Amino acid sequence: MGIIVQKFGGTSVGTVERILNVANRVIQEKENGNDVVVVVSAMGKSTDHLVELAGQITSKPNKREMDMLLTTGEQVTISLLSMALQEKGYQAISFTGWQAGIETEASHGNARITNINTDQILKELAEEKIVVVAGFQGVSDENQITTLGRGGSDTTAVALAAALKADKCDIYTDVTGVYTTDPRYVKGARKLETISYDEMLELANLGAGVLHPRAVEFAKNYNVLLEVRSSMENERGTIIGEESNMEENLIVRGIAFEDQVTRVSVLGLPNELPTLSTIFSRLANHGINVDIIIQNTTSVNKTSISFSIKTSDLDDTNTILKQLKADLNYERIEVESGLAKVSIVGSGMVSNPGVAAEMFAVLAGQGVEVKMVSTSEIKVSTVIAQEQMVPAVDVLHSTFELSKEVTRI
Amino acid sequence: MGIIVQKFGGTSVGTVERILNVANRVIQEKENGNDVVVVVSAMGKSTDHLVELAGQITSKPNKREMDMLLTTGEQVTISLLSMALQEKGYQAISFTGWQAGIETEASHGNARITNINTDQILKELAEEKIVVVAGFQGVSDENQITTLGRGGSDTTAVALAAALKADKCDIYTDVTGVYTTDPRYVKGARKLETISYDEMLELANLGAGVLHPRAVEFAKNYNVLLEVRSSMENERGTIIGEESNMEENLIVRGIAFEDQVTRVSVLGLPNELPTLSTIFSRLANHGINVDIIIQNTTSVNKTSISFSIKTSDLDDTNTILKQLKADLNYERIEVESGLAKVSIVGSGMVSNPGVAAEMFAVLAGQGVEVKMVSTSEIKVSTVIAQEQMVPAVDVLHSTFELSKEVTRI
Repeated sequence: MGIIVQKFGGTSVGTVERILNVANRVIQEKENGNDVVVVVSAMGKSTDHLVELAGQITSKPNKREMDMLLTTGEQVTISLLSMALQEKGYQAISFTGWQAGIETEASHGNARITNINTDQILKELAEEKIVVVAGFQGVSDENQITTLGRGGSDTTAVALAAALKADKCDIYTDVTGVYTTDPRYVKGARKLETISYDEMLELANLGAGVLHPRAVEFAKNYNVLLEVRSSMENERGTIIGEESNMEENLIVRGIAFEDQVTRVSVLGLPNELPTLSTIFSRLANHGINVDIIIQNTTSVNKTSISFSIKTSDLDDTNTILKQLKADLNYERIEVESGLAKVSIVGSGMVSNPGVAAEMFAVLAGQGVEVKMVSTSEIKVSTVIAQEQMVPAVDVLHSTFELSKEVTRI
Repeated sequence: MGIIVQKFGGTSVGTVERILNVANRVIQEKENGNDVVVVVSAMGKSTDHLVELAGQITSKPNKREMDMLLTTGEQVTISLLSMALQEKGYQAISFTGWQAGIETEASHGNARITNINTDQILKELAEEKIVVVAGFQGVSDENQITTLGRGGSDTTAVALAAALKADKCDIYTDVTGVYTTDPRYVKGARKLETISYDEMLELANLGAGVLHPRAVEFAKNYNVLLEVRSSMENERGTIIGEESNMEENLIVRGIAFEDQVTRVSVLGLPNELPTLSTIFSRLANHGINVDIIIQNTTSVNKTSISFSIKTSDLDDTNTILKQLKADLNYERIEVESGLAKVSIVGSGMVSNPGVAAEMFAVLAGQGVEVKMVSTSEIKVSTVIAQEQMVPAVDVLHSTFELSKEVTRI
């Protein structure tokens, strides 16, 4: 018997019927003899509705007031879930972020958790109550209501699990776990039993989208054992934990991919130091997320820079680069859209330098031109033509034998 | 220059368009050179929607969780109104009940305000900000979110005005003020310039419905000057204040009335003391509001009790009286439905004992049978047949010359 933190996202609590279903999942864990803390998001589309209301009033809502507005969404869910638990005969109590002792920086829209005062939650758990906490929100030391930004409810759950020294943090979502690759595209995609924090981080960053990277980082830092599992199906999900607990006999654990990628090349730049920071700080200030960056000194005193962006950011990027023309003194810009990124991820790569080479060989054998490459200790990312994306993922999935069941050691 | 508290109810903030309109009313007061604190209710039907969600989960929602749920309604309004004020170029900040320092008893659904810590509000006012406060809600000393029950936002506004020593508390509503009687029924009904707290209390209790009696009591106790006025029309409303400031030359100030009244008589009760308390405590426990009570000792050792209730409570009342048959040992029950209550209200009655007699004479002259009577120092209530209600109000309105404009002394 220990403490289990369960997190249910917006889709899982999207209707009253689903909230009643969530109550059953919570009760099941309570009946297993655990103390249960549940973290929930706002119901389905309710946040969108609130954003729309604000949008009818102003195009630039004050961030503090936006936090005030949006945090009502989770507050509705916690009260309804508590009522559902009570209706089913269990003691339950709901807490907003400030009531749950979730203290954050004094910034709005994207605050970081600074401390969690667990006194109140522990008191209620000691009285055998199920504690239901609003995700995504906290309170600053000036009594301001704050929000944690994207992936906020995941972060709330993991942070609470860390502070409460919970045995486990279960992230309930609309998929049944973390897969070797997206099962909608690759027939042989297999659910992983376990994965390491670092591998999950690479998969999450690369578009697997199951769990917010920030929450994974938090879990890694505080060594919180996570499980990603389905709120609809009653089956085991994927455990995310330390390397040492993991399946170790596989070099590549998963393949992430995303389309709608564009490569932008700025050619014929004078070879001066500030150029890189000028371009990328300006792009960042406009909210444009640059992914892979390659710099090439092609001739004496001339440099070229290529970087990949989301195709939806191309217009803004072009505008900014044109504004910088005089400052940067570049010769020309080349743009290639219709690209995709395919990455192989696995902790085993660190000690297997041949993996990248094998990946390139396989892609070449399929006639796939690799346009950009980026590597880290546990992943290799390539940018290729979008129409080759799914076949490439498919062949890589076979090559690295990801469909095979892994025998636990 | 002083502090003005403005309160806008659910209808006044029912849509984004209306919230923008409210912002203009607030700005007008700010531009007059005042410090402005605005209290708002939940948007229109949003509370009903939340109640319905809870109703889909349980028929007996936990009161604490219901407070958690319902208080989100005002929180949405305060953030949107603050955004609207900011969009129009004014500094504004919103506060929930707990942030505004509104401390209440530790009970849910109907808590009383115990204290208001005005530090935060005064700090923001000193910085020239318009402060927007969520009505209807507070916080207990155990950090529980509480609600103030019916008329809660009116009470919040008046309590804030008292705590802030505001010059005035303006209650914006969907009528233009307090009338001598309901203008939908009586053509000559006239808006009152001023009315005393006590008169307003009697009118409110008797069904005028503009302002919650609890808020009027609070205003009376703390001598808060109120004005009831329209959020749609830009005209003066009705001032509610101390007797001494008021039009003094009229004995009767208003006529209140309500239909759907039933008289219940319990006949042939043994003449013993506990009977009254037995009946009425049992009815009160079932939420049945008994209005006029008349006790008559008709023969030696036998007593009859008559009381008036809302007709909608009749079934429950019958059930309870049947359950009490053995305990009370009464002979029989008589019920008369299809009744109405008509009351004349005015502070001048205290020193004019003939007013009640004049009322009865006028009613008798119209062939109206008075079935029950109840009097206080400033009102006379009668129960009559429902079909005679509007003609009776009409003739009383003429008799006491309520249509006449009053010249201020």
